[in-house]
Amino acid sequence: MPVNNISSKEWLRKPRILCGLMTGTSLDGVDTAIVKFHTDKNGKHKFSLIAKETYSLPGEINILMNKILSEQSSISDASSLNFILSEIYADCINKLCNSSAFSINDIDAVGMHGQTVWHNPFKSLIGKYRVASTLQLGSVSALSQIINKTVVGDFRSADIALGGLGAPLVPIFDYEFLSDEKESRIILNIGGIANITLLPKNCRKEKVIAFDTGPGNVLINFAANKYFDIKYDKNGNIARSGKRISEFFNFLSRIPFMTKQPPKSTGRELFNHELIAPYLSKYNKYPENILRTLTDFTSWSIAENIRLYAEPKSIIIASGGGTENIFLLEQLKKELGGTKILMSDNFVIPTDAKEAICFAYLAYRTLGGMTSNLPSVTGASHEAKLGVIAFP
Amino acid sequence: MPVNNISSKEWLRKPRILCGLMTGTSLDGVDTAIVKFHTDKNGKHKFSLIAKETYSLPGEINILMNKILSEQSSISDASSLNFILSEIYADCINKLCNSSAFSINDIDAVGMHGQTVWHNPFKSLIGKYRVASTLQLGSVSALSQIINKTVVGDFRSADIALGGLGAPLVPIFDYEFLSDEKESRIILNIGGIANITLLPKNCRKEKVIAFDTGPGNVLINFAANKYFDIKYDKNGNIARSGKRISEFFNFLSRIPFMTKQPPKSTGRELFNHELIAPYLSKYNKYPENILRTLTDFTSWSIAENIRLYAEPKSIIIASGGGTENIFLLEQLKKELGGTKILMSDNFVIPTDAKEAICFAYLAYRTLGGMTSNLPSVTGASHEAKLGVIAFP
Repeated sequence: MPVNNISSKEWLRKPRILCGLMTGTSLDGVDTAIVKFHTDKNGKHKFSLIAKETYSLPGEINILMNKILSEQSSISDASSLNFILSEIYADCINKLCNSSAFSINDIDAVGMHGQTVWHNPFKSLIGKYRVASTLQLGSVSALSQIINKTVVGDFRSADIALGGLGAPLVPIFDYEFLSDEKESRIILNIGGIANITLLPKNCRKEKVIAFDTGPGNVLINFAANKYFDIKYDKNGNIARSGKRISEFFNFLSRIPFMTKQPPKSTGRELFNHELIAPYLSKYNKYPENILRTLTDFTSWSIAENIRLYAEPKSIIIASGGGTENIFLLEQLKKELGGTKILMSDNFVIPTDAKEAICFAYLAYRTLGGMTSNLPSVTGASHEAKLGVIAFP
Repeated sequence: MPVNNISSKEWLRKPRILCGLMTGTSLDGVDTAIVKFHTDKNGKHKFSLIAKETYSLPGEINILMNKILSEQSSISDASSLNFILSEIYADCINKLCNSSAFSINDIDAVGMHGQTVWHNPFKSLIGKYRVASTLQLGSVSALSQIINKTVVGDFRSADIALGGLGAPLVPIFDYEFLSDEKESRIILNIGGIANITLLPKNCRKEKVIAFDTGPGNVLINFAANKYFDIKYDKNGNIARSGKRISEFFNFLSRIPFMTKQPPKSTGRELFNHELIAPYLSKYNKYPENILRTLTDFTSWSIAENIRLYAEPKSIIIASGGGTENIFLLEQLKKELGGTKILMSDNFVIPTDAKEAICFAYLAYRTLGGMTSNLPSVTGASHEAKLGVIAFP
């Protein structure tokens, strides 16, 4: 039954089932999750995961996306992709329901992140206008009509409009479901970029800090692909067989971003091929050494940020594709001495479904009339209800 | 007071004040209106106009828009314009409140049409996808945060997703406020393109027909600009001084679109410079004759569609910038013999504010959980709640 313009109070009164959809900038697939949320009598949110799956994006979408991200594209391509993505997302929801034998009728609403095609949280001069902006494709309105469900999307614009970075948005989820009264925790996500949410024990929402630590998979995957023609270094085995190149490692560890005070965020505009090209050509005789160095640097950069900015004696709860790199995690453990590293699976959050669950949760909050951005994290002037809502 | 996720039933219970914002494809300005709506005990909607104004768009926006509409633009330009327009719209709302001494605090919500940068309701092949789409810029979420109000926008996507033309959306407004039990009425709007809504006496909503008749101002203004360096032919005086060129008129009147069965819609993709170029170069010795011919053709095309498709003995209620062309209206009257032509002002709808009032009304309906597209008009598979909603 689609939820039809009920009040936010009424929305929170009953358990609700949401489908979350996440497509990252790496275009590696659509993460989907069906999640049941409810608000207990103390106002505390609870969730249980019903189903999750990652669906690959059709190759044509990659081509169209790359066309749009280049300067060669027209606005009609963007408009078309906006609607095509809604069709694809609808297909994913249907597939997930079919494969998990879950009735689509029981879904109350959808939280759709959409595909980021532009994200610039810093005011730049466009003519006489100083403007920051973000743009996710995937039409909220079209998806709502196609699947006949309430859909919430465009989660980042409100925070940007309030002067924030528009990211990260996951910290409210970390705070609600992973913070603890007696234990300081670091929530680590290793995607293309790695980021952490710091949750000191018994911390208030206003005190949550979260930021990017530097590369996650991005440099490792790039080198694995370039030298070994593989998508990623499975279990980190190639890196394990190599030796660290000190000169290269030192260069990387001295990048000012690495130890910069948070809040900070980064992306492929810094951690890309150009950054490491001189060292790649110098040391490409032993590519396993390059992989080793990049893996060491990645684990070091996460560890260094934790040493600098996290509460001592915090435990780490890790998620994201990068957690499959066993050697990377081993190196991280070595760097941090006795720090306990748990997988988010231990908290009933599959490492590969966390973001999809999170955007289902953000939709749950918005429909409940709740704010979701954390100004202490994003730098926005105040909290805001994130996203736009379409009713079928 | 911003309306904060109340139920749609609750929304309709009290009078609500909405601000409507319309920017047409001609980029001539932002039409704004503050309107009070309420639903009487019979479920009938009523409105009263509180203030209205048209604000010109900064020249830089025209430049940026034209860049985006050309193939030379990047997605970052579109993303920036999306946010810049929200800033401009917020300014317009503030200006309108200041100039009319109306407190912005009393506005309950905003209906924002946005700036159309792409509209293709016909499925075209993009890679292996057959897709129709529409794209209006102006971030609903950002505007909501900037002015701290509930905002509804992106009204056309839902209808397109349901296989409709995504236009026209004004007919529901015409039906609700201008239909009559005892009188058949034709609601005529002369903008760049001219369109009519047919409201036979005592007609049901499902029977409303509306369509484009052909050019409104577009060809006349083009020629006025080209030959006389003026924005438009004031009162139609130049056309009045000229003579109709039969060959040119006959060519135009034989365009298949002119007499095509509705529903039909058109735009500058048909009625543009290329269409008339051969005749312009042939007859440019007497440009007043060109203007006369284009004015005659415009009035004829409206009249011919009325003769072909409207109930006999209908009255005409006219609005839009083209109604300021006295000669055009005189010619239309001549074409239609005794047909009564009234201005929409007689129905408390200023001719230049109708669309802004209409999009305020569409927002009122969406927040009230009501559908607004008419499948008999747009061809959509069914009625839909139009737009996306952002709460501050």
